Amino acid sequence: MSALKPLADKVVIQPMEAEEKTSGGIYLPDSAKKKPQQGKVVAVGDGKILENGERAKLSVKTGDSVLYSKYGGNEVTIDGVDYTILEEDQIYAIINN
Amino acid sequence: MSALKPLADKVVIQPMEAEEKTSGGIYLPDSAKKKPQQGKVVAVGDGKILENGERAKLSVKTGDSVLYSKYGGNEVTIDGVDYTILEEDQIYAIINN
Amino acid sequence: MSALKPLADKVVIQPMEAEEKTSGGIYLPDSAKKKPQQGKVVAVGDGKILENGERAKLSVKTGDSVLYSKYGGNEVTIDGVDYTILEEDQIYAIINN
Amino acid sequence: MSALKPLADKVVIQPMEAEEKTSGGIYLPDSAKKKPQQGKVVAVGDGKILENGERAKLSVKTGDSVLYSKYGGNEVTIDGVDYTILEEDQIYAIINN
Amino acid sequence: MSALKPLADKVVIQPMEAEEKTSGGIYLPDSAKKKPQQGKVVAVGDGKILENGERAKLSVKTGDSVLYSKYGGNEVTIDGVDYTILEEDQIYAIINN
Amino acid sequence: MSALKPLADKVVIQPMEAEEKTSGGIYLPDSAKKKPQQGKVVAVGDGKILENGERAKLSVKTGDSVLYSKYGGNEVTIDGVDYTILEEDQIYAIINN
Amino acid sequence: MSALKPLADKVVIQPMEAEEKTSGGIYLPDSAKKKPQQGKVVAVGDGKILENGERAKLSVKTGDSVLYSKYGGNEVTIDGVDYTILEEDQIYAIINN
Repeated sequence: MSALKPLADKVVIQPMEAEEKTSGGIYLPDSAKKKPQQGKVVAVGDGKILENGERAKLSVKTGDSVLYSKYGGNEVTIDGVDYTILEEDQIYAIINN
Repeated sequence: MSALKPLADKVVIQPMEAEEKTSGGIYLPDSAKKKPQQGKVVAVGDGKILENGERAKLSVKTGDSVLYSKYGGNEVTIDGVDYTILEEDQIYAIINN
Repeated sequence: MSALKPLADKVVIQPMEAEEKTSGGIYLPDSAKKKPQQGKVVAVGDGKILENGERAKLSVKTGDSVLYSKYGGNEVTIDGVDYTILEEDQIYAIINN
Repeated sequence: MSALKPLADKVVIQPMEAEEKTSGGIYLPDSAKKKPQQGKVVAVGDGKILENGERAKLSVKTGDSVLYSKYGGNEVTIDGVDYTILEEDQIYAIINN
Repeated sequence: MSALKPLADKVVIQPMEAEEKTSGGIYLPDSAKKKPQQGKVVAVGDGKILENGERAKLSVKTGDSVLYSKYGGNEVTIDGVDYTILEEDQIYAIINN
Repeated sequence: MSALKPLADKVVIQPMEAEEKTSGGIYLPDSAKKKPQQGKVVAVGDGKILENGERAKLSVKTGDSVLYSKYGGNEVTIDGVDYTILEEDQIYAIINN
Repeated sequence: MSALKPLADKVVIQPMEAEEKTSGGIYLPDSAKKKPQQGKVVAVGDGKILENGERAKLSVKTGDSVLYSKYGGNEVTIDGVDYTILEEDQIYAIINN
């Protein structure tokens, strides 16, 4: 999915299907009001520009499995695959394998 | 479209027609509530001034194909062509060819 | 119109009549909800003071034709001519001739 | 009016009567929703403290005629004369004579 | 009133009675919606900490007569005397004698 | 009460009973809408991290008697004693003995 | 619980059961409107990036018992265990043993 190069602190994520989620051992409770979404990072920006002119490099990289907020992301479909574009601050954690 | 020189972090974008979008392999789902818009960058500002007095150069350049928020932009028509003027932060990603 | 010296990042603009706008080749669609206004810069401030004590010089100068937000400006009439006073951030772009 | 020493970026202004305004050649349209007020600066603060510890000196000085927002100011009467106290950012421009 | 040591940019003020106000030559119009309050500074903080780690010393000192916003202050009674505690930014001006 | 170590600019306060308050010579008027609360500091954080990476040390220390906002604090009971946890900015002043 | 690596200032907490809470000697009053939650830190981020490009290291570490706001956290279940992910600023204090 090298078709998109996110800007600044933006990240392109491929949401993982509900089936994949359970196989990975991570369950999101239905009752949770603000439960996060799970997905795979497919493209990352170069980081926001700080007041000193440098960029704040992102912590996530392509290939990372992440938990992220399901609110605020923007959806796009490329070659029939759904992606979400959001800012890195909306990602809660990287899932280690 | 050298008629407009955007200020600071503002960018002039020529929205792409729905026909062009499908030919490029990128589909925006109708059901998405916050789906981005696709377009071509035709003019960019010199960047916002940081607190240290330097400018934060923009990441997009004239000719780039981009996905951007369809909210918040300002419309203008020059010689019969529609353009949108927005801040670079409202651009999600550059579409690589 | 040297009667007014704007403060900081404020700019005095003389709005252009609808007749002038069409002759310049720039058309603003009636249907656009947030369409910008066109005008001529007649006076500019010295720029806001940054946290390092320096001023952020303005990008527009007297005589520039600009597109700007029609919201947020303040109207004043001098010798029978209407002007709008706004902050430079409300100006979208300089119109090159 | 040396009775008041404003703090930081605050400014004491003596509003000008409607009669004085028209004689000075500046007319404020009744129809304008956000039309500014005209007045004379009678006392200024030493400027706000920046993050580097220095003060951002004010651009207006005692005696300046200014256009300012009629919202947000605070009224006080000294020896029977009405004054308005506001922050310099609420002043739009200095009126040159 | 050395019983209270305000923190940061906070100031303890003893409001002046309506009788004292008129004798000092300063009248606050009843019709003013946001008219300031008059009082005497009885204790001041050491100033807020700036991003460079230094403190922004206050401009008012114990004994100063000041005009201040009557909104936002916090009331306390010590030995039967009423005081108001507020942030220095809510003080408009020092009244010179 | 060494059981809690507050983070950053947070402070643990033991509210003082109404009986103790009057004996200390400080009376809080019932009619005051925003009257502060009195209490004793039992634990303090190490201060917030400034943009230069240093910590802004707190001004209050364990044992200080303070006036603080009764809004915004969080209540906790340890060994049957009630405490309030709040940020130092919600403390108005130290009460000197 | 090394499965999650939080980003920036985010922290993964395992909430403690009501039974465990009383045994630890800390009681949260039912009547408190904003009473904090008790839990154990199981994973921490590397800290937010400051404007000078450095990271603000977190004060909490894996294994710490903490009091935290029960609002704003995001719930996730891993291998049948419930966790909360929040920003360190939502943690009030570390509970010393």
